[in-house]
Amino acid sequence: MTGKIVGNNRFLKEFNQTAILDMIRVHKAISRAELSKLTGLSPTAIGSIVSELLEMGYISESGIGESKGGRRPVLIELKPKSFYTIGIDMDVNYINFVLMDITSWIIEERTLGMPKSLVFKNVMKVIRGEIKKILKDYGITTERLLGIGMSVPGMVDSRDLKIIFAPNMGWEDIDVKDQFEDFSDIKVYVENEAMASAISENWIGTCQGISNFVCVNIKSGIGSGIFIDGKPYRGTSGITGEVGHMVVDSNGSKCRCGNYGCLETIASTTHMVDQAKRLVKSGIASKLNDISDVEDLSPKSIIDCAREGDEVSRNILLESARYLGLAISSIVNILSPQKVVLGKDFVHYSDIVLDHMKEIVMCKALKQTSKDVEITESKLGERASVLGSAIIPLKVFFGK
Amino acid sequence: MTGKIVGNNRFLKEFNQTAILDMIRVHKAISRAELSKLTGLSPTAIGSIVSELLEMGYISESGIGESKGGRRPVLIELKPKSFYTIGIDMDVNYINFVLMDITSWIIEERTLGMPKSLVFKNVMKVIRGEIKKILKDYGITTERLLGIGMSVPGMVDSRDLKIIFAPNMGWEDIDVKDQFEDFSDIKVYVENEAMASAISENWIGTCQGISNFVCVNIKSGIGSGIFIDGKPYRGTSGITGEVGHMVVDSNGSKCRCGNYGCLETIASTTHMVDQAKRLVKSGIASKLNDISDVEDLSPKSIIDCAREGDEVSRNILLESARYLGLAISSIVNILSPQKVVLGKDFVHYSDIVLDHMKEIVMCKALKQTSKDVEITESKLGERASVLGSAIIPLKVFFGK
Repeated sequence: MTGKIVGNNRFLKEFNQTAILDMIRVHKAISRAELSKLTGLSPTAIGSIVSELLEMGYISESGIGESKGGRRPVLIELKPKSFYTIGIDMDVNYINFVLMDITSWIIEERTLGMPKSLVFKNVMKVIRGEIKKILKDYGITTERLLGIGMSVPGMVDSRDLKIIFAPNMGWEDIDVKDQFEDFSDIKVYVENEAMASAISENWIGTCQGISNFVCVNIKSGIGSGIFIDGKPYRGTSGITGEVGHMVVDSNGSKCRCGNYGCLETIASTTHMVDQAKRLVKSGIASKLNDISDVEDLSPKSIIDCAREGDEVSRNILLESARYLGLAISSIVNILSPQKVVLGKDFVHYSDIVLDHMKEIVMCKALKQTSKDVEITESKLGERASVLGSAIIPLKVFFGK
Repeated sequence: MTGKIVGNNRFLKEFNQTAILDMIRVHKAISRAELSKLTGLSPTAIGSIVSELLEMGYISESGIGESKGGRRPVLIELKPKSFYTIGIDMDVNYINFVLMDITSWIIEERTLGMPKSLVFKNVMKVIRGEIKKILKDYGITTERLLGIGMSVPGMVDSRDLKIIFAPNMGWEDIDVKDQFEDFSDIKVYVENEAMASAISENWIGTCQGISNFVCVNIKSGIGSGIFIDGKPYRGTSGITGEVGHMVVDSNGSKCRCGNYGCLETIASTTHMVDQAKRLVKSGIASKLNDISDVEDLSPKSIIDCAREGDEVSRNILLESARYLGLAISSIVNILSPQKVVLGKDFVHYSDIVLDHMKEIVMCKALKQTSKDVEITESKLGERASVLGSAIIPLKVFFGK
């Protein structure tokens, strides 16, 4: 917060409340005097706003700060477990939930199985049921729920709360708002899972304070969330960062998007498993043959075999990383981001391939665009998107 | 301009002057009353600022507007030929100059040959001489020159006025500021030629009022200028939009950047000419064989032959467009821009290839990211970058 805050009408009052709440969040614990100094508002005005925020229950007086002569000042902080958000993330096999409080503290994480049918209405029934259960388990009234964020592995219209296309789920053109009627007084947000990951990396992860970065999520599909100037970049259509459908091999195989040679057809975990199956069936000698039923092959079995020294499995992972590196080098040449964070399934095998991938990027991107970029795995791992979903209502609450 | 303008100290006065000048620019002709209404400043304050701007010579009272009851108001407009900027653009064969006035009116364009040696100091000697000549020819004192903009076919550090790397020119790590010592009281700007093109498309071309767009320039190399949120996007390194070095064929030939299969190695005019030469030397039947000396083959000869119905020449152009379309489809998938404008040499053969290129993008990019994008040729043609160079000082002057 650099600007001064002025004015006294109702809009400005709410604006000032939000700005001061965010200042308390950033500083974790801060005195009234410091708030006054930072905002340029008079001690009286700050006193009045802080009293209101105390009364509304968002903050608490928490400790005693250091004295700079005179009485030691009372510090103010966000009040833990006063207000909450719920985040939801899903894929073909699971629905993840997280309950977070106003301080971005993770209260609980839960995982449920995804209904086999994948029918959206059934999925939403499970989700609504679990939200109610979480609220009941923690005795949280809807007045104390700042919002619900839901991330989806597909294209969304985050403004109109619509799922445009989530091919793995078989969902197309679905209105999400209707499905939250039970929570009509709660703010609901829908986000693409890679953008949700980027949001959490920016709020609590490895991209805090970073303006331009890209989070690439690798799993059955490949997507990315792009931040530019410290904000999610949505482009003209609202759909951006579709890295998985960059053509990296114009002679490549058919992608589920209808095109040929997309990155997904070479570097997704789906492709890795397909390739492992083909190799096993073709009789190539490798540890992969030890798995009794070829249909049981999974990304985990490839990673396990690679770790046990199986070169064939290792090469499947390295080839995937090579093409990923090729796509990322193009992104670096175009966007010159400060960071590229690789997440989701990638974190399970990044120790095997990350260095190789970095070499590819350093070799394929121009030295002038790549010299400042840091390429790293997500420290939030698979949880990045569910955490990001819970963070979205917090971002709105804090005016970010 | 939506916000109100308040305050009366010197900084705010200059700020308000700039804002009002820009409002006059946008409206072309506007009355004091309208300025007052739009800014929220009192008629007295507007009267005072307008008087100062009249005295400084930036504006003039130009005509009589329509009456809305009462006296018909005097209109104010920017004063033509009161203040000027000079833009410079160059490549291996030429140096282009443009003299523009405060109204963005093009007073004159000149082209000089580039010194054969390409030695930067010699080039700058020619440039300085021509700037002095232009100023003398038009009787312009340096006080009436708002700035000089120079665009270079290569990577620049536009903040520190440095050429980082311009491979075609053989320039690397050059301080430009030193070379403008004769004009030490003039503001000088250096820009990459594709970004300069994007700036002119946004100011006077096909991208006025468009937030997210990409200008791709095709000539001996391929580069692009990216606008995001209505501003040039510079990323972390200051170097972005290096479309020419996206790998579009991982088995492709060596690029001057050291990498293999970059777009430039397939779609630049240099590549087209190389390919035409190879085809002639290999004895393939085509109109290209009619050119007496194979070393005289140029982009123009290929385009001319294609227009005369030569399939071989046509295919050279179409293959180039196909790969360009492939790279643009990746950009569309990542950035979802509203427009992609193709410029420089492309405008000479866009009638032959543009439709084909559009088909490639529509086919290769996801339908959700490509449905809103318009792909078009530059209407400013080869002049886009020299005009953009002259516009840079104007943008600064008008606070944009």
